[in-house]
Amino acid sequence: MLAAFRRTFGAFGFVPIETPHIERMEVLTGKGAGSDEVLRQIFEVTNKGGTPGELALRFDLTVPLARFAAKHIDELGTPFKRYAIGSVFRGERPAKGRFREFVQCDFDTIGTESAVADAETAQVIHAALDAAGVPGFTITLNHRKILDGFLNAHGLAGVTGQVLRSLDKLAKIGRDAVLGELERSASEGGPGLANDQARRVLDFAESGRGGAEVLDGVEASLGSDPAVAHGIATLRNVLALLDAAGVPRDRLAIDLGLARGLDYYTGTVFETTVKDWEKFGSIASGGRYDNLASLFTTRRLPGVGASIGLDRLLALMDEAGWLKATGTTAPVLVAQFPGVEPITPFSLAARLRAAGIGAEVYPDPISIGKQMGYGSSRGHKLAVIVGPDEASRGVFNLRNLATRVEDKGLDQSVLEDSVQSMLEVVRMQEAGV
Amino acid sequence: MLAAFRRTFGAFGFVPIETPHIERMEVLTGKGAGSDEVLRQIFEVTNKGGTPGELALRFDLTVPLARFAAKHIDELGTPFKRYAIGSVFRGERPAKGRFREFVQCDFDTIGTESAVADAETAQVIHAALDAAGVPGFTITLNHRKILDGFLNAHGLAGVTGQVLRSLDKLAKIGRDAVLGELERSASEGGPGLANDQARRVLDFAESGRGGAEVLDGVEASLGSDPAVAHGIATLRNVLALLDAAGVPRDRLAIDLGLARGLDYYTGTVFETTVKDWEKFGSIASGGRYDNLASLFTTRRLPGVGASIGLDRLLALMDEAGWLKATGTTAPVLVAQFPGVEPITPFSLAARLRAAGIGAEVYPDPISIGKQMGYGSSRGHKLAVIVGPDEASRGVFNLRNLATRVEDKGLDQSVLEDSVQSMLEVVRMQEAGV
Repeated sequence: MLAAFRRTFGAFGFVPIETPHIERMEVLTGKGAGSDEVLRQIFEVTNKGGTPGELALRFDLTVPLARFAAKHIDELGTPFKRYAIGSVFRGERPAKGRFREFVQCDFDTIGTESAVADAETAQVIHAALDAAGVPGFTITLNHRKILDGFLNAHGLAGVTGQVLRSLDKLAKIGRDAVLGELERSASEGGPGLANDQARRVLDFAESGRGGAEVLDGVEASLGSDPAVAHGIATLRNVLALLDAAGVPRDRLAIDLGLARGLDYYTGTVFETTVKDWEKFGSIASGGRYDNLASLFTTRRLPGVGASIGLDRLLALMDEAGWLKATGTTAPVLVAQFPGVEPITPFSLAARLRAAGIGAEVYPDPISIGKQMGYGSSRGHKLAVIVGPDEASRGVFNLRNLATRVEDKGLDQSVLEDSVQSMLEVVRMQEAGV
Repeated sequence: MLAAFRRTFGAFGFVPIETPHIERMEVLTGKGAGSDEVLRQIFEVTNKGGTPGELALRFDLTVPLARFAAKHIDELGTPFKRYAIGSVFRGERPAKGRFREFVQCDFDTIGTESAVADAETAQVIHAALDAAGVPGFTITLNHRKILDGFLNAHGLAGVTGQVLRSLDKLAKIGRDAVLGELERSASEGGPGLANDQARRVLDFAESGRGGAEVLDGVEASLGSDPAVAHGIATLRNVLALLDAAGVPRDRLAIDLGLARGLDYYTGTVFETTVKDWEKFGSIASGGRYDNLASLFTTRRLPGVGASIGLDRLLALMDEAGWLKATGTTAPVLVAQFPGVEPITPFSLAARLRAAGIGAEVYPDPISIGKQMGYGSSRGHKLAVIVGPDEASRGVFNLRNLATRVEDKGLDQSVLEDSVQSMLEVVRMQEAGV
């Protein structure tokens, strides 16, 4: 799956840039870097003689990108498109000594405000999940300015942050709980919304789900606000570009209640859920930020990006039964026949690899039946077998491990071609042809 | 380079298995897990409410493999061939708050004592470095039992460990310093060798460098020791297998003084140096171990493996000027012409990608000259340009970014073929044809 993601990111011109797992604590805890919850989960890192509190493990890939981009953007130039696949760390239920380490796959385009980059972000999510074999997912879009405009129009501009964070939990905790939270806002120390205000926010959030027609509705009610109009135009633009790129419309949805809890998003935002597996939450999320690196530089660095949560996606696919056991990537097992010099299988395998065909030599001359069992369980497709008789005649047997059909006495001089053509047969058989 | 390594490991049937960066401290500090020096450099990891001293960052990929293999070997079955590419962490000069995080590429074959697996380990080192474009390297081989036999024959069996660790520094600190260390052995608290003993050890280590003939020499002097004879036979076997696999003899050397400081090696050992860049030390090292997982299980798990030090290799190649700036992996830049709807370049790029050709759309309709400059600096090969005139005629211009030659007015319906064939021209031009 990671190979599919790397190929996809590369095909769009994103280059891999890895930053260290360890960052200076002040980088991670700077203003706006992470939510309070995330900051509470930071892992401190110390070694003998080191200063406690100086170093920590990254909790996401975005803050390290911001630090990196702020430092190097002049050499890098813009647009700067990078992807990173790496572990991030958050401490959970610390009393039990449990910890969480999970893999994020981030890609970002920095230094442009173009809606083309917004559309491409959704397109990359689509292409990556498609390439990874995820069926039936929906990429949900919204624009922060539309929600902002609604809150403005209802005199709620001062509580945007807390409304966003509460709305973000809608799918998880349900309408009533969000309603209560909006009214209390106790956890935020905010003023709390009047009951009718809170209901209106929720009605707006819940009513605005669907296709492009949702944008027509909000245009009628809020389109006179220039910021809202910009948000609507951007989303229409993004949808048109995605159409042009062949992303099926049924893979896309507009949801005016999509909030993304993080404060730094300022434009288009994305979430991705898998049909019938919505309980796993979003497996690929992101959005546009006006100024990613404001913590580290006075230079303005707008950008857009998203993050695919690999562990969550794998857990979902595992539970859904969509994960194929991939096993070995070497299609051929070269057996080691008792009584035959290991040089024979070793050199045949080297010839196959030189021809671009992955091949594994079984290391010990145990019974051929056991070696075939190993090959079948590991996912090898074919076995090359040379017994003493075959060795003396310069031939080999080629066994299809699925059908157990064996072509006997093939000439070793045509090894590569024989294996290649039987692999084609196997591929057709696997495809059900 | 990592892609080349992954391809190579996969072609030999190694499967990628990643373990967490964080391990329990007791796993990392268990008996024999690491040298005293490494253990002093461990990074402790704590979060709010966590127990200090409970968790730490891994300092290599071998100890986590041992833990993993001990726990799961029954489900995995043997031979178990895995590779892992990941960061490891060691604290250095802690007073200055400096830290080291570096990437190791490990591959191991567990559950076999076959010399075929020893030979394959050297073959994989050769294939991986070849695929990564490293010129002129030498894989040096030795067998632990030969050195053991020599020490035995000279009554030095009791000081094997300290002799190995001193010999391991020979290339780095020179003969005189090693001689002094062997005589003092103060750092180890050992008894120290008599001056003539120490000289004899060094003479043996230094004399035994060369090709297969070195083995004939040691056979004459120590071959009556069955352990030494086994070591000699194994190395001859390995050389014959590597010959059969087409690994050039001048890429291989025997060095009877090659020690590998680590205690857990018990058979064939490997180091790899690059010609004229020996000062960087070994860039790929490993060996056979009788019992990797003895810390974690009573089951015996023999195996063989090696580790490529990515950072050291990259530093070497950088200093030698062998690193090619790879830049983008998308060969085509699709320009966004001012005044042309972005849908046009967006959909052309999507068609190229669907045909397997990486393509990047420039996100903003700035001047074409600047976009071409971006493409050249990022390593794009071709640019697809559609101005207002081309858009109305359904054609496009295709520019070779290196030669600046532009084919004008190509029909958009043959986009994929036109780009494919000009990419072939570029490849020929780059190859100097």
